[in-house]
Amino acid sequence: MPKGFAVPRSPLGRAAINPPPPWHYSSEVIGVDFWADPVATAALLPEGLSPDPATNGHARVLFSDSQFTAQDDEFLDPARYQFREVRVLIDAVWGETAVTYCPFSFADNDAALSRGWMQGLPTKLGQIAQTRSYAAWSEAAAPVSPGGRFAASASAHGCRLIDVSVTLDRREEDGRSFFERPTALLRYVPQLVAGQQHRPAMHELTLLLVENVRTVDMWIGHGFLSLPEVRGEELDALRPLRMNFGFRCGMAYSVEDLRVLQDLRD
Amino acid sequence: MPKGFAVPRSPLGRAAINPPPPWHYSSEVIGVDFWADPVATAALLPEGLSPDPATNGHARVLFSDSQFTAQDDEFLDPARYQFREVRVLIDAVWGETAVTYCPFSFADNDAALSRGWMQGLPTKLGQIAQTRSYAAWSEAAAPVSPGGRFAASASAHGCRLIDVSVTLDRREEDGRSFFERPTALLRYVPQLVAGQQHRPAMHELTLLLVENVRTVDMWIGHGFLSLPEVRGEELDALRPLRMNFGFRCGMAYSVEDLRVLQDLRD
Amino acid sequence: MPKGFAVPRSPLGRAAINPPPPWHYSSEVIGVDFWADPVATAALLPEGLSPDPATNGHARVLFSDSQFTAQDDEFLDPARYQFREVRVLIDAVWGETAVTYCPFSFADNDAALSRGWMQGLPTKLGQIAQTRSYAAWSEAAAPVSPGGRFAASASAHGCRLIDVSVTLDRREEDGRSFFERPTALLRYVPQLVAGQQHRPAMHELTLLLVENVRTVDMWIGHGFLSLPEVRGEELDALRPLRMNFGFRCGMAYSVEDLRVLQDLRD
Amino acid sequence: MPKGFAVPRSPLGRAAINPPPPWHYSSEVIGVDFWADPVATAALLPEGLSPDPATNGHARVLFSDSQFTAQDDEFLDPARYQFREVRVLIDAVWGETAVTYCPFSFADNDAALSRGWMQGLPTKLGQIAQTRSYAAWSEAAAPVSPGGRFAASASAHGCRLIDVSVTLDRREEDGRSFFERPTALLRYVPQLVAGQQHRPAMHELTLLLVENVRTVDMWIGHGFLSLPEVRGEELDALRPLRMNFGFRCGMAYSVEDLRVLQDLRD
Repeated sequence: MPKGFAVPRSPLGRAAINPPPPWHYSSEVIGVDFWADPVATAALLPEGLSPDPATNGHARVLFSDSQFTAQDDEFLDPARYQFREVRVLIDAVWGETAVTYCPFSFADNDAALSRGWMQGLPTKLGQIAQTRSYAAWSEAAAPVSPGGRFAASASAHGCRLIDVSVTLDRREEDGRSFFERPTALLRYVPQLVAGQQHRPAMHELTLLLVENVRTVDMWIGHGFLSLPEVRGEELDALRPLRMNFGFRCGMAYSVEDLRVLQDLRD
Repeated sequence: MPKGFAVPRSPLGRAAINPPPPWHYSSEVIGVDFWADPVATAALLPEGLSPDPATNGHARVLFSDSQFTAQDDEFLDPARYQFREVRVLIDAVWGETAVTYCPFSFADNDAALSRGWMQGLPTKLGQIAQTRSYAAWSEAAAPVSPGGRFAASASAHGCRLIDVSVTLDRREEDGRSFFERPTALLRYVPQLVAGQQHRPAMHELTLLLVENVRTVDMWIGHGFLSLPEVRGEELDALRPLRMNFGFRCGMAYSVEDLRVLQDLRD
Repeated sequence: MPKGFAVPRSPLGRAAINPPPPWHYSSEVIGVDFWADPVATAALLPEGLSPDPATNGHARVLFSDSQFTAQDDEFLDPARYQFREVRVLIDAVWGETAVTYCPFSFADNDAALSRGWMQGLPTKLGQIAQTRSYAAWSEAAAPVSPGGRFAASASAHGCRLIDVSVTLDRREEDGRSFFERPTALLRYVPQLVAGQQHRPAMHELTLLLVENVRTVDMWIGHGFLSLPEVRGEELDALRPLRMNFGFRCGMAYSVEDLRVLQDLRD
Repeated sequence: MPKGFAVPRSPLGRAAINPPPPWHYSSEVIGVDFWADPVATAALLPEGLSPDPATNGHARVLFSDSQFTAQDDEFLDPARYQFREVRVLIDAVWGETAVTYCPFSFADNDAALSRGWMQGLPTKLGQIAQTRSYAAWSEAAAPVSPGGRFAASASAHGCRLIDVSVTLDRREEDGRSFFERPTALLRYVPQLVAGQQHRPAMHELTLLLVENVRTVDMWIGHGFLSLPEVRGEELDALRPLRMNFGFRCGMAYSVEDLRVLQDLRD
């Protein structure tokens, strides 16, 4: 039988797109925290989740430039496993639990796409770029310090979808508190059998579980976000009404579990 | 609820990665028909399929440069929906039925990747190129005629995986007979929940159903195939022992159904 | 000494980016003929060229999906030598000679970029896609016939720069007359030596010479063109005031010469 | 007249591929220092340079993951200006001056390609990846410390050209001494005019001048390098006979000048 954890697996197991969990990540993160139209955010939530009465309309765009590894030194195969990703997160509640929900995500690597789909992320392929901070100073180094400026962008199929910029103001000691809400996702697999195409084979509301979370060098400041209207996309539904703040940090975590909140098939 | 047929779907339905079936394709195909080590082909078959006693070891590499459309003029959005793909197919039987099985496939487009996974194709992202025949004659036109030469290649993560070349000899009137065996696939979705990661949520042996198949301008001739050894891949297991023939044709078909042959869980 | 015709050459001559001329091309072409603001087109012309009193403001966007070969079967190395390109052409005169001038061009291949720069084309890297006509009929085939629709797009750095669509109306017997004006270009090489950076080492007005031109299956019809405003680009200066027509054809030609019209260094 | 320093320039100056110098860089560098066949390195040198009697055969592969800026905050447009590059450098002498010569270089960005060609670098497009060190610790973080492992790879047209790995051993206090030899290059522009194609319009031996060089966190250790044979490339001529060491550092510098050593047109 084919071997490997996630699709696509491979007959001999050497060519599986992903190793089995635990999956370890370390990333440089740039993001903007903002308020969108509460009617729009509520309209994006799936069955099982409700608008958070306290924060409905609150949302985030989170870019990450990441290295991945599992058990086989995948960090030494950067052509195959490094990736850049962006997630859009909106506040919601699952029963009494405050969560975020991810309606949109893009990544530039097929192994990341596969891991995302296995968890319920709606990841599509995109081209993602973000200003990076370098150790050796020059005008190009973008040091992490007051007034430091960073930008990030995401595009798909040659159309710009997201532009973000952040001007750093001050260091935040408690970076962890920025990521307190766990992320709810939808695992969905359709049936292609004729006559059954509207009854999914799998439809689960899931909760992304992350372990060993570390945030370092969390800085916040002024944030700017643009979500232009693009044919075949719908990010512009979350057009920001008001910026909250921008931020930049290092972040590491591991994934080795998933919680299934609810089976959404009737 | 999110709308759209396949993962990733989207909250408003405009940004779903794929429209619902029927899916229509038209392609330019370049391929090589060959014999690999029968022990190797038998070792690649999943549960439910057996080596074909008559043709075990017989295999094909099939490149296609394709246009896709469904109900919404997707052929007018080539940046999003045109794609190039390669499939490796090996002979097998399901009970008494002669089929091919696809252990390896690469495509250069995420919508094609998603449609593939929904059917059970093990598609990974790759860069694919094939010599094309142009209407206006010059030394670069590669006309379809006796002695005409064509080449195709597939790479992933910057490593060359497949090289094919074909020298046309003669036109075959009955192009359909080249594609008589339907293709068996594996639909597989793991569970990521801790403790259940070795029990898949879905594991189906499926049969790809194609409608309205048209082949035009089928030519056959000499074929050459190279499957170099690459770290993290295993195509070299099918290293050709003997070339059968090369071919080139136009082909069109539609997909709107799938047959589930067998549930492979427990 | 390094070997090879164009930069980059290589020490042993096997790795030169391009073979020496003659260079042969065959292409599928989609274009839109339109009228822009005559003030804008005049402002884009370099020294040596003047607005054409008869047609100032007349312009074209020309997409081509091309195969290239020279003396060494380059058409059998499609991963290295196939390419897609778009050129913007505006009418001008050089003395009494009616020409077009190319202020903007994008291609998706470094060998094409190098050949372009050697001739004076201002080619930058871009992602280019165009609807293609396939021989095997399906809803995806886009046949060349009355009412047939085609689209093309160009993007760079994840921003959409050009969108074109064409609806075919009728076949034109005399395709050659569409390409009567030769194209004037600028060969420019700066000096990087401090103090001399404003005195170019080379600055020539050139005329692109093409041989063996063949056009086949020229169809014209309704054309649409969009040139959105993008930061860091200036194609929107040519925003169309009025569409003339759209067209689609096959085209082949060879390049083995260049005419230097004028040395523009003082 | 078109505006902008380097080709391609643009009519209005907003779309020039590169701003004028000074150009500022900050990079993460991974490299391997090695010995190749002295006959091979001598054979790669152009007119004007001679093998270094003391170190002929000595060579380096230098990967850099870089951010670029000039006068207009280009570091805030990472989709357009970030880039990754690899250079191969071999020891040589120009008269009495010890230099390195760069016979091969690849980069993944057209603005970097253009700057390279303006200086004389033989840069072709490639896909480049290198293990990166992240601030937030996890198994994926690749910290810079004894035993730390890093890898880098370069590919072009879907073929792997260079694989490098480094295992860090110890910190070197004097990182600058690693980059003492300046790099000699060839600026070359052919003529395409028929009958003059073998007489270049420009052929200069140049010396790359860098200012404000800073190296930080220089670590050295064990290095490994693979240069496989690839059709259409010739890096394998420098197949390593003996590894010297591997290294990793941060590096910043500026470019605003070039020295022309010699006009090579007879």
